[in-house]
Amino acid sequence: DDHEAKESGDTWLPSLITETPQEGFALAVTLSQKGVGTTQPDAEVRKAQRPEYAEDPDSLIAASHVIATHFQTVAAANDYWRE
Amino acid sequence: DDHEAKESGDTWLPSLITETPQEGFALAVTLSQKGVGTTQPDAEVRKAQRPEYAEDPDSLIAASHVIATHFQTVAAANDYWRE
Amino acid sequence: DDHEAKESGDTWLPSLITETPQEGFALAVTLSQKGVGTTQPDAEVRKAQRPEYAEDPDSLIAASHVIATHFQTVAAANDYWRE
Amino acid sequence: DDHEAKESGDTWLPSLITETPQEGFALAVTLSQKGVGTTQPDAEVRKAQRPEYAEDPDSLIAASHVIATHFQTVAAANDYWRE
Amino acid sequence: DDHEAKESGDTWLPSLITETPQEGFALAVTLSQKGVGTTQPDAEVRKAQRPEYAEDPDSLIAASHVIATHFQTVAAANDYWRE
Amino acid sequence: DDHEAKESGDTWLPSLITETPQEGFALAVTLSQKGVGTTQPDAEVRKAQRPEYAEDPDSLIAASHVIATHFQTVAAANDYWRE
Repeated sequence: DDHEAKESGDTWLPSLITETPQEGFALAVTLSQKGVGTTQPDAEVRKAQRPEYAEDPDSLIAASHVIATHFQTVAAANDYWRE
Repeated sequence: DDHEAKESGDTWLPSLITETPQEGFALAVTLSQKGVGTTQPDAEVRKAQRPEYAEDPDSLIAASHVIATHFQTVAAANDYWRE
Repeated sequence: DDHEAKESGDTWLPSLITETPQEGFALAVTLSQKGVGTTQPDAEVRKAQRPEYAEDPDSLIAASHVIATHFQTVAAANDYWRE
Repeated sequence: DDHEAKESGDTWLPSLITETPQEGFALAVTLSQKGVGTTQPDAEVRKAQRPEYAEDPDSLIAASHVIATHFQTVAAANDYWRE
Repeated sequence: DDHEAKESGDTWLPSLITETPQEGFALAVTLSQKGVGTTQPDAEVRKAQRPEYAEDPDSLIAASHVIATHFQTVAAANDYWRE
Repeated sequence: DDHEAKESGDTWLPSLITETPQEGFALAVTLSQKGVGTTQPDAEVRKAQRPEYAEDPDSLIAASHVIATHFQTVAAANDYWRE
């Protein structure tokens, strides 16, 4: 979390395809965090914010909503792992 | 709820396919809670928050929205249980 | 509203298919309420909250948003009742 | 607005099909209002709330979001009026 | 912005088809504003609100979210301007 | 960021097609910022707001949600970069 590739640097998203739904969910979490990291690139600031929002149920529900939105994308990309 | 697999441990999401729409809705609820649990992994903290947001209609509506978003995904995965 | 099946009990969602768009909208309302009921299973508490959020325009708009999200799912399931 | 069919009464949503995109947008507005009307069925209360939220930019943006969500559904139902 | 067609009057949305993605984005902005204008039809009031929400980052993010939702619709209508 | 094309001027969105998922994510970020820039066109004001929302976890989560919504569009446009 502390260590993060620069936007125009390392590859952090080579593909949306995952082996399993569960890995797809983990990717959705990563995408959500990346969206936050793009707006607030300072990992120290983000780390300092964590206690604040992790104690606030409404923040947690909002974060869960972002994950849900990305999971829609990842699940569609993988044709819902139907096979 | 108190007992939860570590992210990179047990399998909690083997498939998005369910027998019935109602089981699909229950899976959407699970996915929503998992999104919260990923950001706040301490089950004790989450348990302590429950009275707070369960009494707040706006939190309940927001939680219902996350479930609705995941239900879209699960329903599509199951081709809406059309037949 | 006061009387509600336990989650792992009676069937409340046998199908997403409805005869008409209007019945589909009513089902979307049911799904939205079920999402709230899952997080706050005590019907008495929900009943007590009703005056609070029913008087708050922002809560009503948020509730309408959840219905809209579920209506997307139900409408797709019914192929938009096109014919 | 003041006069409204009871939920289980008159038909207010016979179809999602409209002649033009503009009529589809108007239908999305109707669906959004219906979502509010379902939760707060008292037209007098809704009327009294109007000055409050119509003066609040955040409420207006939230209402516009609900319309956007329903417009996705209506537009898909009409195959985006591509012809 | 000040001058606006009445809802049941002039045509403001003849089609969702645009030449380019950029024009599609502009249409999404128009649809978002129209959603606001439907709920608050008084252009003077809307104009007076502008300084308030244009200075509030959260309002701007919320407005951007509505645009994103409409852009999904417009992009799908145009088959993503793939060719 | 400071330098920005006028709305009806330069081309900033020639296509939704990108080489990789990661570039698609970057495009989603651009679209989100453009949505903000359309409502608040003054780059100086936006710059002044940045410290405010970049320190607020809820704003960051909301911004991440907008990115997620645009990423759905860009990913679909690119057929999820499946091959």
